[in-house]
Amino acid sequence: MENRASGQHISHLFDEEMENIRNKVLTMGGLVQKQMEQAVKSFITSDQDLAEKILQQDELVNDLEKEIDHECIEVIAKRQPTAIDLRMLISIIKVITDLERIGDEAGRIAKMAIRLDATDYYHDQYHEVSHLVEMVKSMLSDSLDAFARMNTESIASITKRDEKVDREYTSIIRQLITRMMEDPRNITRMLDVLWTARALERIGDHACNLCEHVVYIVQGDDVRHLNAEELEQKIQD
Amino acid sequence: MENRASGQHISHLFDEEMENIRNKVLTMGGLVQKQMEQAVKSFITSDQDLAEKILQQDELVNDLEKEIDHECIEVIAKRQPTAIDLRMLISIIKVITDLERIGDEAGRIAKMAIRLDATDYYHDQYHEVSHLVEMVKSMLSDSLDAFARMNTESIASITKRDEKVDREYTSIIRQLITRMMEDPRNITRMLDVLWTARALERIGDHACNLCEHVVYIVQGDDVRHLNAEELEQKIQD
Repeated sequence: MENRASGQHISHLFDEEMENIRNKVLTMGGLVQKQMEQAVKSFITSDQDLAEKILQQDELVNDLEKEIDHECIEVIAKRQPTAIDLRMLISIIKVITDLERIGDEAGRIAKMAIRLDATDYYHDQYHEVSHLVEMVKSMLSDSLDAFARMNTESIASITKRDEKVDREYTSIIRQLITRMMEDPRNITRMLDVLWTARALERIGDHACNLCEHVVYIVQGDDVRHLNAEELEQKIQD
Repeated sequence: MENRASGQHISHLFDEEMENIRNKVLTMGGLVQKQMEQAVKSFITSDQDLAEKILQQDELVNDLEKEIDHECIEVIAKRQPTAIDLRMLISIIKVITDLERIGDEAGRIAKMAIRLDATDYYHDQYHEVSHLVEMVKSMLSDSLDAFARMNTESIASITKRDEKVDREYTSIIRQLITRMMEDPRNITRMLDVLWTARALERIGDHACNLCEHVVYIVQGDDVRHLNAEELEQKIQD
Protein backbone atom coordinates (compact mmCIF):
# COMPACT_ATOMS: atom_id res chain seq x y z
CA MET A 1 0.00 0.00 0.00
CA GLU A 2 2.77 2.36 0.93
CA ASN A 3 4.59 1.47 -2.27
CA ARG A 4 1.49 2.19 -4.28
CA ALA A 5 1.01 5.52 -2.56
CA SER A 6 4.61 6.41 -3.20
CA GLY A 7 4.20 5.27 -6.82
CA GLN A 8 1.22 7.56 -7.18
CA HIS A 9 3.17 10.37 -5.59
CA ILE A 10 6.02 9.94 -8.08
CA SER A 11 3.61 9.71 -10.98
CA HIS A 12 1.92 12.91 -9.79
CA LEU A 13 5.31 14.65 -9.55
CA PHE A 14 6.19 13.41 -13.02
CA ASP A 15 2.94 14.76 -14.47
CA GLU A 16 3.66 18.09 -12.83
CA GLU A 17 7.18 18.18 -14.26
CA MET A 18 5.92 17.37 -17.74
CA GLU A 19 3.20 20.02 -17.49
CA ASN A 20 5.73 22.57 -16.29
CA ILE A 21 8.06 21.82 -19.22
CA ARG A 22 5.22 21.99 -21.75
CA ASN A 23 4.11 25.34 -20.35
CA LYS A 24 7.63 26.72 -20.68
CA VAL A 25 7.75 25.57 -24.31
CA LEU A 26 4.47 27.40 -24.95
CA THR A 27 5.88 30.52 -23.29
CA MET A 28 8.98 30.26 -25.50
CA GLY A 29 6.75 29.72 -28.55
CA GLY A 30 4.69 32.81 -27.72
CA LEU A 31 7.88 34.80 -27.26
CA VAL A 32 9.43 33.94 -30.65
CA GLN A 33 6.06 34.43 -32.37
CA LYS A 34 5.93 37.93 -30.91
CA GLN A 35 9.57 38.50 -31.88
CA MET A 36 8.79 37.55 -35.46
CA GLU A 37 5.70 39.76 -35.68
CA GLN A 38 7.48 42.71 -34.11
CA ALA A 39 10.54 42.20 -36.32
CA VAL A 40 8.37 42.40 -39.42
CA LYS A 41 6.65 45.49 -37.98
CA SER A 42 9.99 47.16 -37.26
CA PHE A 43 11.08 46.37 -40.82
CA ILE A 44 7.90 47.80 -42.35
CA THR A 45 7.86 50.96 -40.28
CA SER A 46 11.65 51.37 -39.96
CA ASP A 47 11.14 51.44 -36.19
CA GLN A 48 14.67 51.26 -34.80
CA ASP A 49 13.59 51.26 -31.14
CA LEU A 50 11.31 48.28 -31.66
CA ALA A 51 14.09 46.49 -33.56
CA GLU A 52 16.52 47.05 -30.67
CA LYS A 53 13.93 45.67 -28.23
CA ILE A 54 13.62 42.49 -30.28
CA LEU A 55 17.38 41.97 -30.25
CA GLN A 56 17.40 42.37 -26.46
CA GLN A 57 14.70 39.69 -26.11
CA ASP A 58 17.05 37.23 -27.76
CA GLU A 59 18.79 36.54 -24.45
CA LEU A 60 15.48 35.66 -22.83
CA VAL A 61 14.77 33.13 -25.59
CA ASN A 62 18.27 31.64 -25.29
CA ASP A 63 17.92 31.30 -21.52
CA LEU A 64 14.55 29.60 -21.87
CA GLU A 65 16.04 27.19 -24.40
CA LYS A 66 18.85 26.20 -22.02
CA GLU A 67 16.46 25.91 -19.07
CA ILE A 68 13.94 23.68 -20.87
CA ASP A 69 16.73 21.57 -22.34
CA HIS A 70 18.24 20.91 -18.90
CA GLU A 71 14.87 20.11 -17.38
CA CYS A 72 14.08 17.59 -20.13
CA ILE A 73 17.40 15.80 -19.64
CA GLU A 74 16.92 15.82 -15.86
CA VAL A 75 13.46 14.29 -16.13
CA ILE A 76 14.76 11.62 -18.52
CA ALA A 77 17.61 10.76 -16.13
CA LYS A 78 15.43 10.79 -13.00
CA ARG A 79 12.13 9.33 -14.18
CA GLN A 80 13.35 7.09 -17.01
CA PRO A 81 10.17 7.58 -19.04
CA THR A 82 9.31 5.38 -22.00
CA ALA A 83 6.91 5.45 -24.97
CA ILE A 84 4.98 8.69 -25.46
CA ASP A 85 6.58 10.49 -22.49
CA LEU A 86 10.09 9.82 -23.77
CA ARG A 87 9.03 10.82 -27.29
CA MET A 88 7.58 14.02 -25.88
CA LEU A 89 10.77 14.93 -23.98
CA ILE A 90 13.13 14.13 -26.87
CA SER A 91 10.86 16.04 -29.25
CA ILE A 92 10.70 19.05 -26.96
CA ILE A 93 14.52 19.19 -27.02
CA LYS A 94 14.21 19.47 -30.80
CA VAL A 95 11.21 21.83 -30.74
CA ILE A 96 13.09 24.40 -28.67
CA THR A 97 16.01 24.31 -31.13
CA ASP A 98 13.57 25.25 -33.89
CA LEU A 99 12.00 27.94 -31.71
CA GLU A 100 15.40 29.40 -30.91
CA ARG A 101 16.25 29.52 -34.62
CA ILE A 102 12.96 31.30 -35.35
CA GLY A 103 14.05 33.88 -32.77
CA ASP A 104 17.41 34.15 -34.59
CA GLU A 105 15.67 34.77 -37.91
CA ALA A 106 13.48 37.43 -36.26
CA GLY A 107 16.70 38.99 -34.98
CA ARG A 108 18.09 39.05 -38.53
CA ILE A 109 14.99 40.91 -39.74
CA ALA A 110 15.31 43.37 -36.83
CA LYS A 111 18.96 44.03 -37.76
CA MET A 112 17.81 44.80 -41.30
CA ALA A 113 15.25 47.26 -39.88
CA ILE A 114 18.03 49.04 -38.01
CA ARG A 115 20.10 49.28 -41.17
CA LEU A 116 17.13 50.50 -43.23
CA ASP A 117 16.55 53.29 -40.78
CA ALA A 118 20.17 54.34 -41.23
CA THR A 119 19.60 54.69 -44.97
CA ASP A 120 16.63 56.51 -46.47
CA TYR A 121 13.22 55.30 -45.44
CA TYR A 122 11.55 53.51 -48.28
CA HIS A 123 7.82 53.23 -47.83
CA ASP A 124 7.37 50.53 -50.44
CA GLN A 125 9.58 47.88 -48.87
CA TYR A 126 6.64 46.08 -47.33
CA HIS A 127 4.87 45.60 -50.61
CA GLU A 128 7.18 42.83 -51.87
CA VAL A 129 7.03 40.67 -48.77
CA SER A 130 3.53 41.43 -47.43
CA HIS A 131 1.97 38.26 -48.79
CA LEU A 132 4.87 36.12 -47.56
CA VAL A 133 4.62 37.69 -44.09
CA GLU A 134 0.96 36.78 -43.74
CA MET A 135 1.52 33.21 -44.92
CA VAL A 136 4.44 32.57 -42.56
CA LYS A 137 2.71 34.24 -39.61
CA SER A 138 -0.30 31.94 -39.97
CA MET A 139 1.94 28.86 -40.43
CA LEU A 140 3.84 29.62 -37.24
CA SER A 141 0.73 30.40 -35.25
CA ASP A 142 -1.04 27.23 -36.42
CA SER A 143 1.97 25.00 -35.78
CA LEU A 144 2.36 26.35 -32.23
CA ASP A 145 -1.34 25.70 -31.78
CA ALA A 146 -0.95 22.12 -33.02
CA PHE A 147 1.81 21.63 -30.44
CA ALA A 148 -0.25 23.18 -27.65
CA ARG A 149 -3.22 20.93 -28.38
CA MET A 150 -1.12 17.91 -29.49
CA ASN A 151 -3.42 17.70 -32.48
CA THR A 152 -2.33 16.62 -35.95
CA GLU A 153 -5.51 17.72 -37.75
CA SER A 154 -4.24 21.00 -39.19
CA ILE A 155 -0.73 19.74 -39.97
CA ALA A 156 -1.27 18.67 -43.58
CA SER A 157 -2.66 22.12 -44.35
CA ILE A 158 0.35 23.83 -42.69
CA THR A 159 2.96 21.88 -44.65
CA LYS A 160 1.02 22.45 -47.88
CA ARG A 161 1.18 26.17 -47.19
CA ASP A 162 4.96 25.85 -46.93
CA GLU A 163 5.09 24.79 -50.57
CA LYS A 164 3.19 27.99 -51.42
CA VAL A 165 5.65 29.95 -49.25
CA ASP A 166 8.55 28.51 -51.25
CA ARG A 167 6.91 29.51 -54.53
CA GLU A 168 6.16 33.01 -53.23
CA TYR A 169 9.76 33.33 -52.02
CA THR A 170 11.16 32.34 -55.44
CA SER A 171 8.88 34.85 -57.12
CA ILE A 172 9.99 37.63 -54.73
CA ILE A 173 13.66 36.93 -55.46
CA ARG A 174 12.93 37.14 -59.19
CA GLN A 175 11.16 40.51 -58.77
CA LEU A 176 13.98 41.87 -56.62
CA ILE A 177 16.60 40.92 -59.22
CA THR A 178 14.60 42.72 -61.91
CA ARG A 179 14.41 45.85 -59.79
CA MET A 180 18.13 45.71 -59.03
CA MET A 181 18.86 45.51 -62.75
CA GLU A 182 16.50 48.37 -63.55
CA ASP A 183 18.25 50.68 -61.15
CA PRO A 184 21.53 49.64 -59.49
CA ARG A 185 20.95 52.28 -56.81
CA ASN A 186 18.28 49.86 -55.53
CA ILE A 187 20.77 47.06 -54.93
CA THR A 188 21.57 47.55 -51.23
CA ARG A 189 17.95 48.08 -50.30
CA MET A 190 16.72 45.20 -52.43
CA LEU A 191 19.28 42.92 -50.77
CA ASP A 192 17.83 43.83 -47.37
CA VAL A 193 14.38 42.88 -48.63
CA LEU A 194 15.91 39.69 -50.03
CA TRP A 195 17.45 38.73 -46.66
CA THR A 196 14.13 39.45 -44.96
CA ALA A 197 12.28 37.24 -47.43
CA ARG A 198 14.89 34.57 -46.83
CA ALA A 199 14.45 34.80 -43.04
CA LEU A 200 10.68 34.47 -43.44
CA GLU A 201 11.06 31.45 -45.71
CA ARG A 202 13.30 29.84 -43.08
CA ILE A 203 10.74 30.54 -40.35
CA GLY A 204 8.22 28.67 -42.51
CA ASP A 205 10.62 25.69 -42.60
CA HIS A 206 10.96 25.73 -38.82
CA ALA A 207 7.15 25.84 -38.48
CA CYS A 208 7.05 22.67 -40.60
CA ASN A 209 9.65 21.08 -38.34
CA LEU A 210 7.39 21.83 -35.36
CA CYS A 211 4.57 20.02 -37.16
CA GLU A 212 6.78 16.99 -37.78
CA HIS A 213 7.65 16.86 -34.08
CA VAL A 214 3.95 16.93 -33.16
CA VAL A 215 3.23 13.99 -35.51
CA TYR A 216 6.12 12.08 -33.95
CA ILE A 217 4.88 12.73 -30.40
CA VAL A 218 1.26 11.84 -31.16
CA GLN A 219 1.73 8.92 -33.59
CA GLY A 220 5.35 7.83 -33.09
CA ASP A 221 5.96 8.23 -36.86
CA ASP A 222 9.11 9.94 -38.08
CA VAL A 223 7.81 12.08 -40.96
CA ARG A 224 10.91 14.16 -41.65
CA HIS A 225 12.00 14.65 -45.24
CA LEU A 226 8.57 13.76 -46.67
CA ASN A 227 6.79 16.12 -49.03
CA ALA A 228 3.39 17.58 -48.09
CA GLU A 229 1.47 14.84 -49.90
CA GLU A 230 3.41 11.95 -48.33
CA LEU A 231 3.00 13.59 -44.94
CA GLU A 232 -0.75 13.89 -45.39
CA GLN A 233 -0.87 10.18 -46.20
CA LYS A 234 1.05 9.33 -43.02
CA ILE A 235 -1.32 11.38 -40.88
CA GLN A 236 -4.40 9.75 -42.38
CA ASP A 237 -2.94 6.27 -41.88
CA MET B 1 27.05 -14.90 -9.81
CA GLU B 2 24.56 -15.38 -12.58
CA ASN B 3 23.19 -11.89 -11.96
CA ARG B 4 26.62 -10.39 -12.16
CA ALA B 5 27.35 -12.23 -15.39
CA SER B 6 24.07 -11.05 -16.83
CA GLY B 7 24.87 -7.49 -15.66
CA GLN B 8 28.21 -7.69 -17.44
CA HIS B 9 26.47 -9.04 -20.50
CA ILE B 10 24.06 -6.10 -20.57
CA SER B 11 26.84 -3.61 -19.98
CA HIS B 12 28.81 -5.17 -22.82
CA LEU B 13 25.76 -4.96 -25.10
CA PHE B 14 25.27 -1.33 -24.09
CA ASP B 15 28.91 -0.49 -24.90
CA GLU B 16 28.48 -2.13 -28.27
CA GLU B 17 25.30 -0.17 -28.97
CA MET B 18 26.99 3.10 -28.04
CA GLU B 19 30.02 2.29 -30.18
CA ASN B 20 27.77 1.39 -33.10
CA ILE B 21 25.88 4.69 -32.82
CA ARG B 22 29.10 6.73 -32.56
CA ASN B 23 30.49 5.00 -35.65
CA LYS B 24 27.35 5.84 -37.59
CA VAL B 25 27.65 9.48 -36.56
CA LEU B 26 31.25 9.48 -37.82
CA THR B 27 30.10 7.94 -41.11
CA MET B 28 27.44 10.62 -41.42
CA GLY B 29 30.03 13.30 -40.57
CA GLY B 30 32.39 11.98 -43.26
CA LEU B 31 29.54 11.97 -45.74
CA VAL B 32 28.47 15.59 -45.23
CA GLN B 33 32.10 16.71 -45.18
CA LYS B 34 32.57 15.08 -48.58
CA GLN B 35 29.27 16.60 -49.76
CA MET B 36 30.48 20.05 -48.78
CA GLU B 37 33.89 19.65 -50.43
CA GLN B 38 32.38 18.25 -53.61
CA ALA B 39 29.70 20.95 -53.67
CA VAL B 40 32.36 23.64 -53.58
CA LYS B 41 34.29 21.80 -56.30
CA SER B 42 31.20 21.54 -58.49
CA PHE B 43 30.62 25.26 -57.98
CA ILE B 44 34.20 26.20 -58.90
CA THR B 45 34.42 23.98 -61.95
CA SER B 46 30.75 24.27 -62.99
CA ASP B 47 30.60 20.47 -62.88
CA GLN B 48 26.91 19.68 -63.27
CA ASP B 49 27.32 15.90 -63.00
CA LEU B 50 29.13 16.18 -59.70
CA ALA B 51 26.48 18.61 -58.43
CA GLU B 52 23.73 16.13 -59.34
CA LYS B 53 25.59 13.38 -57.49
CA ILE B 54 25.72 15.49 -54.34
CA LEU B 55 21.98 16.11 -54.47
CA GLN B 56 21.38 12.37 -54.79
CA GLN B 57 23.49 11.70 -51.67
CA ASP B 58 21.08 13.83 -49.68
CA GLU B 59 18.73 10.89 -49.23
CA LEU B 60 21.53 8.79 -47.77
CA VAL B 61 22.27 11.50 -45.22
CA ASN B 62 18.59 11.87 -44.34
CA ASP B 63 18.23 8.11 -43.86
CA LEU B 64 21.29 7.97 -41.61
CA GLU B 65 19.87 10.84 -39.55
CA LYS B 66 16.59 9.00 -39.00
CA GLU B 67 18.36 5.71 -38.25
CA ILE B 68 20.75 7.18 -35.67
CA ASP B 69 17.94 9.19 -34.09
CA HIS B 70 15.79 6.08 -33.63
CA GLU B 71 18.68 4.07 -32.23
CA CYS B 72 19.50 6.78 -29.67
CA ILE B 73 15.90 6.91 -28.47
CA GLU B 74 15.72 3.11 -28.33
CA VAL B 75 18.89 2.89 -26.24
CA ILE B 76 17.60 5.60 -23.87
CA ALA B 77 14.28 3.73 -23.46
CA LYS B 78 15.87 0.30 -23.06
CA ARG B 79 19.06 0.98 -21.08
CA GLN B 80 17.98 4.08 -19.12
CA PRO B 81 21.48 5.56 -19.14
CA THR B 82 22.47 8.44 -16.87
CA ALA B 83 25.32 10.97 -16.62
CA ILE B 84 27.79 10.98 -19.50
CA ASP B 85 26.03 8.22 -21.47
CA LEU B 86 22.72 10.09 -21.43
CA ARG B 87 24.51 13.35 -22.32
CA MET B 88 26.20 11.54 -25.20
CA LEU B 89 22.94 10.15 -26.58
CA ILE B 90 21.00 13.43 -26.25
CA SER B 91 23.92 15.31 -27.81
CA ILE B 92 24.16 12.88 -30.69
CA ILE B 93 20.50 13.56 -31.47
CA LYS B 94 21.48 17.23 -31.77
CA VAL B 95 24.77 16.56 -33.59
CA ILE B 96 23.01 14.71 -36.39
CA THR B 97 20.57 17.61 -36.86
CA ASP B 98 23.57 19.88 -37.43
CA LEU B 99 25.17 17.34 -39.77
CA GLU B 100 21.97 17.04 -41.76
CA ARG B 101 21.78 20.84 -42.10
CA ILE B 102 25.40 20.93 -43.31
CA GLY B 103 24.32 18.44 -45.99
CA ASP B 104 21.42 20.77 -46.85
CA GLU B 105 23.76 23.73 -47.25
CA ALA B 106 26.05 21.62 -49.47
CA GLY B 107 22.95 20.80 -51.52
CA ARG B 108 22.22 24.52 -51.89
CA ILE B 109 25.75 25.11 -53.23
CA ALA B 110 25.34 22.19 -55.63
CA LYS B 111 22.07 23.67 -56.93
CA MET B 112 23.91 26.92 -57.57
CA ALA B 113 26.54 24.98 -59.52
CA ILE B 114 23.83 23.50 -61.72
CA ARG B 115 22.39 26.94 -62.36
CA LEU B 116 25.83 28.42 -63.12
CA ASP B 117 26.42 25.74 -65.70
CA ALA B 118 23.17 26.70 -67.38
CA THR B 119 24.38 30.29 -67.73
CA ASP B 120 27.83 31.23 -69.07
CA TYR B 121 30.76 29.74 -67.28
CA TYR B 122 32.57 32.35 -65.28
CA HIS B 123 36.08 31.29 -64.35
CA ASP B 124 36.52 33.93 -61.67
CA GLN B 125 33.67 32.86 -59.40
CA TYR B 126 35.98 30.96 -57.07
CA HIS B 127 38.18 33.93 -56.38
CA GLU B 128 35.69 35.68 -54.06
CA VAL B 129 34.96 32.71 -51.83
CA SER B 130 38.26 30.78 -51.99
CA HIS B 131 39.50 32.02 -48.61
CA LEU B 132 36.12 31.38 -46.97
CA VAL B 133 36.03 27.86 -48.40
CA GLU B 134 39.38 26.96 -46.87
CA MET B 135 38.45 28.38 -43.48
CA VAL B 136 35.11 26.57 -43.29
CA LYS B 137 36.56 23.29 -44.59
CA SER B 138 39.16 23.27 -41.80
CA MET B 139 36.58 24.24 -39.17
CA LEU B 140 34.31 21.37 -40.17
CA SER B 141 37.13 18.87 -40.38
CA ASP B 142 38.53 19.89 -36.97
CA SER B 143 35.14 19.85 -35.27
CA LEU B 144 34.37 16.36 -36.59
CA ASP B 145 37.80 15.34 -35.32
CA ALA B 146 37.03 16.80 -31.87
CA PHE B 147 33.83 14.75 -31.81
CA ALA B 148 35.62 11.57 -32.93
CA ARG B 149 38.26 11.91 -30.21
CA MET B 150 35.92 13.50 -27.62
CA ASN B 151 38.62 16.08 -27.10
CA THR B 152 37.97 19.73 -26.29
CA GLU B 153 41.55 20.94 -26.86
CA SER B 154 41.09 22.40 -30.34
CA ILE B 155 37.61 23.80 -29.71
CA ALA B 156 38.57 27.32 -28.64
CA SER B 157 40.60 27.69 -31.82
CA ILE B 158 37.69 26.47 -33.98
CA THR B 159 35.16 28.91 -32.54
CA LYS B 160 37.69 31.75 -32.84
CA ARG B 161 38.02 30.92 -36.52
CA ASP B 162 34.25 31.31 -36.83
CA GLU B 163 34.57 34.97 -35.89
CA LYS B 164 37.08 35.32 -38.75
CA VAL B 165 34.65 33.50 -41.04
CA ASP B 166 31.93 36.01 -40.16
CA ARG B 167 34.25 38.93 -40.94
CA GLU B 168 35.32 37.34 -44.23
CA TYR B 169 31.67 36.73 -45.13
CA THR B 170 30.72 40.37 -44.47
CA SER B 171 33.63 41.54 -46.58
CA ILE B 172 32.62 39.22 -49.45
CA ILE B 173 29.05 40.58 -49.41
CA ARG B 174 30.42 44.13 -49.57
CA GLN B 175 32.62 43.25 -52.57
CA LEU B 176 29.74 41.52 -54.34
CA ILE B 177 27.49 44.55 -53.91
CA THR B 178 30.18 46.80 -55.41
CA ARG B 179 30.51 44.52 -58.42
CA MET B 180 26.75 44.39 -58.89
CA MET B 181 26.62 48.18 -58.88
CA GLU B 182 29.52 48.44 -61.33
CA ASP B 183 27.78 46.26 -63.84
CA PRO B 184 24.16 45.20 -63.34
CA ARG B 185 24.70 42.36 -65.80
CA ASN B 186 26.70 40.75 -62.95
CA ILE B 187 23.72 40.71 -60.58
CA THR B 188 22.39 37.17 -61.11
CA ARG B 189 25.83 35.62 -61.03
CA MET B 190 26.92 37.66 -58.01
CA LEU B 191 23.78 36.57 -56.17
CA ASP B 192 24.75 32.93 -56.74
CA VAL B 193 28.17 33.67 -55.24
CA LEU B 194 26.39 35.45 -52.39
CA TRP B 195 24.17 32.42 -51.64
CA THR B 196 27.22 30.18 -51.75
CA ALA B 197 29.08 32.43 -49.31
CA ARG B 198 26.00 32.39 -47.11
CA ALA B 199 25.83 28.57 -47.18
CA LEU B 200 29.51 28.36 -46.23
CA GLU B 201 29.03 30.80 -43.37
CA ARG B 202 26.14 28.66 -42.08
CA ILE B 203 28.29 25.51 -42.29
CA GLY B 204 30.80 27.33 -40.08
CA ASP B 205 27.99 27.95 -37.56
CA HIS B 206 27.03 24.28 -37.57
CA ALA B 207 30.69 23.31 -37.02
CA CYS B 208 30.63 25.55 -33.92
CA ASN B 209 27.45 23.83 -32.75
CA LEU B 210 29.27 20.48 -33.06
CA CYS B 211 32.02 21.88 -30.82
CA GLU B 212 29.49 23.01 -28.23
CA HIS B 213 27.98 19.52 -28.17
CA VAL B 214 31.44 18.00 -27.59
CA VAL B 215 32.06 20.34 -24.63
CA TYR B 216 28.67 19.37 -23.20
CA ILE B 217 29.38 15.64 -23.55
CA VAL B 218 32.89 15.83 -22.07
CA GLN B 219 32.36 18.44 -19.34
CA GLY B 220 28.59 18.60 -18.86
CA ASP B 221 28.70 22.39 -19.43
CA ASP B 222 26.13 24.03 -21.68
CA VAL B 223 28.24 26.55 -23.62
CA ARG B 224 25.67 27.62 -26.20
CA HIS B 225 25.29 31.33 -26.93
CA LEU B 226 28.72 32.21 -25.54
CA ASN B 227 31.24 34.15 -27.60
CA ALA B 228 34.64 32.59 -28.45
CA GLU B 229 36.34 34.18 -25.44
CA GLU B 230 33.72 33.10 -22.90
CA LEU B 231 33.81 29.62 -24.38
CA GLU B 232 37.59 29.42 -24.04
CA GLN B 233 37.24 30.39 -20.39
CA LYS B 234 34.71 27.61 -19.82
CA ILE B 235 36.97 25.00 -21.40
CA GLN B 236 39.95 26.06 -19.30
CA ASP B 237 37.89 25.95 -16.11
